[in-house]
Amino acid sequence: MSDSVSVGMADTDRRGVAPVGLLTTSRIRRSPFADHVEAAGVKGYTVYNHMLLPLVYRSLEEDYRHLKEHVQLWDVAAQRQVEISGPDSGRLVQWMTPRDLSWAEIGQCFYAPLVDETGGMVNDPVILKLADDRFWLSLADSDVLLWARGLASAGGFDVAIAEPDVSPLAVQGPKSEDLMAAVFGEAVRAIGFFRFARLAFDGHDFVVARSGWSKQGGFEIYVDDATLAGDLWDTLLRAGAPFGVGPGCPNVIERIEGGLLSYGGDMTLEHNPFECGLGTYCHLDRPIAFLGRERLEAIQAAGIERQIRGLVIDVPSMPFCTTPWPVSRGGETVGQVTSAAFSPDAGRGLA
Amino acid sequence: MSDSVSVGMADTDRRGVAPVGLLTTSRIRRSPFADHVEAAGVKGYTVYNHMLLPLVYRSLEEDYRHLKEHVQLWDVAAQRQVEISGPDSGRLVQWMTPRDLSWAEIGQCFYAPLVDETGGMVNDPVILKLADDRFWLSLADSDVLLWARGLASAGGFDVAIAEPDVSPLAVQGPKSEDLMAAVFGEAVRAIGFFRFARLAFDGHDFVVARSGWSKQGGFEIYVDDATLAGDLWDTLLRAGAPFGVGPGCPNVIERIEGGLLSYGGDMTLEHNPFECGLGTYCHLDRPIAFLGRERLEAIQAAGIERQIRGLVIDVPSMPFCTTPWPVSRGGETVGQVTSAAFSPDAGRGLA
Repeated sequence: MSDSVSVGMADTDRRGVAPVGLLTTSRIRRSPFADHVEAAGVKGYTVYNHMLLPLVYRSLEEDYRHLKEHVQLWDVAAQRQVEISGPDSGRLVQWMTPRDLSWAEIGQCFYAPLVDETGGMVNDPVILKLADDRFWLSLADSDVLLWARGLASAGGFDVAIAEPDVSPLAVQGPKSEDLMAAVFGEAVRAIGFFRFARLAFDGHDFVVARSGWSKQGGFEIYVDDATLAGDLWDTLLRAGAPFGVGPGCPNVIERIEGGLLSYGGDMTLEHNPFECGLGTYCHLDRPIAFLGRERLEAIQAAGIERQIRGLVIDVPSMPFCTTPWPVSRGGETVGQVTSAAFSPDAGRGLA
Repeated sequence: MSDSVSVGMADTDRRGVAPVGLLTTSRIRRSPFADHVEAAGVKGYTVYNHMLLPLVYRSLEEDYRHLKEHVQLWDVAAQRQVEISGPDSGRLVQWMTPRDLSWAEIGQCFYAPLVDETGGMVNDPVILKLADDRFWLSLADSDVLLWARGLASAGGFDVAIAEPDVSPLAVQGPKSEDLMAAVFGEAVRAIGFFRFARLAFDGHDFVVARSGWSKQGGFEIYVDDATLAGDLWDTLLRAGAPFGVGPGCPNVIERIEGGLLSYGGDMTLEHNPFECGLGTYCHLDRPIAFLGRERLEAIQAAGIERQIRGLVIDVPSMPFCTTPWPVSRGGETVGQVTSAAFSPDAGRGLA
């Protein structure tokens, strides 16, 4: 049974997605792909982990269509890594998330909510297990480096915590596997979903994972040598001509269609993972030690008061959501919309 | 004796400060002054603590000239507060900084480097002592909320840590005291430098401090009731007509002239406070307990390897610095420029 509510769109959104002006300074970091991104005609950015992250090239609708049909190169260098290594690294990483990592193997990636002592969402990274004593947390937009250092220094964990200069380049879209195989070889095809391998390009081994922030399939190349970034971009662009490759970026329409949540927009430190629909990653029944356990158990026992839900908005067209829209039922406010876009494929608004 | 070096300006800066496009989404928060800022004709923003921060209205040069002659209203809501309260709040705040706060009085503001266990700069907030067991850290651009929670939860401090919805509005410029007195009364004139008082506007008491991120004098109003933000802005604008009031924002030319450092640009977690010229706030000789003590003592004993310095660049005009410029002496790279602007008043480049 579908539930019917009303959505009040904000006036500020009616002007559409015309970008506002962003003044770049040395505080907002440039990615090693930035020159190529600019040459490719990027039209709008966001700032993510204190770094420029491209958000639109042609238009959101054209980028969306192209992503769903072909293959795109995404500069997602802003998805910064926090590297946690050392004797207590496994224990600290587990301490940071309710997801059971006890059975994690080297070469696996884990989408994992990070939760603080209040049960609040700190971030929702993909965690890569590089070695038994070495992990990367591939981050959404918050300074997990500071949080991890705070926990480690006060908690006496024997670890090293740093942000290595690793800039992911995502290759996303239905033709991504063919393009990746053309550049990295057929071994790419054997990489399982949320697994990674080390594959050579130009004499350098890169971590290559089957992952990415779209539902169209694809890979993320963890570029840990910035001097190779330009060559890699150019090589993928040349090799991708038969597959209709083009520049791209996380697409707001596609990710809402796919139900991917945006940390900082859809969920914040004020939300617990149950509210975010991430209860499946909260392994309260396993004998693991993590920071938010006591609070999450209490929340689960009390029942969830609010929850992130998908909405279908029955309109022929609508603006994007840039400020929360109130959601009401029978005149009473029952929630808010934090991400919304009109889906050309669904022919309706989605939120 | 002045020391002479060469500066290599980056190609990417030669295009000037034309803003690039920023796509706003619900992840980038709007301030309660945003409608007024837009109506006032803001031309360029930065993103600061996941929030829009205005950076230019007319042009950087016109904004600079106006700031030094008149008075400006600055939407610095992005200077978010972390509130630390509870029985151990004083001990935790002291644990976060090498600046001796043992003699701090209620009503005082303290510029303080926050330092982690590696001696690295986490942030450089102004700390307001609101009560013996309640502090605000008025932040530069990093998620101190997460760091503080990490320290507190792992270290067993009995505190509450939150980001209250407090949006500072700065009133800056040589005529700021006259304007503030017109709106908040003559009591404003008695507020000492880096002191605050609680003054009424529209029946609500606001924390009003004599502080701000310029060298032109001024105040910061900590707006803790967003519903009053628009009224306050309009009232200051009306009352300021005789003083030539206008909208403004932290100005890159003025702040470089004044030697104010930008966290994230000029200094990062990779720098210790001695390198940042903040040794004067490192009270290693006082009997206070803070996290970075061991490391800072070792750094001081070993001697400082690099230091932030001001530079005069002897050119008739130059671009702004948006990516680090190498600094060389006799062909050898000896450092980098992270902030630079041509000063109309000095008639030279400053960095």
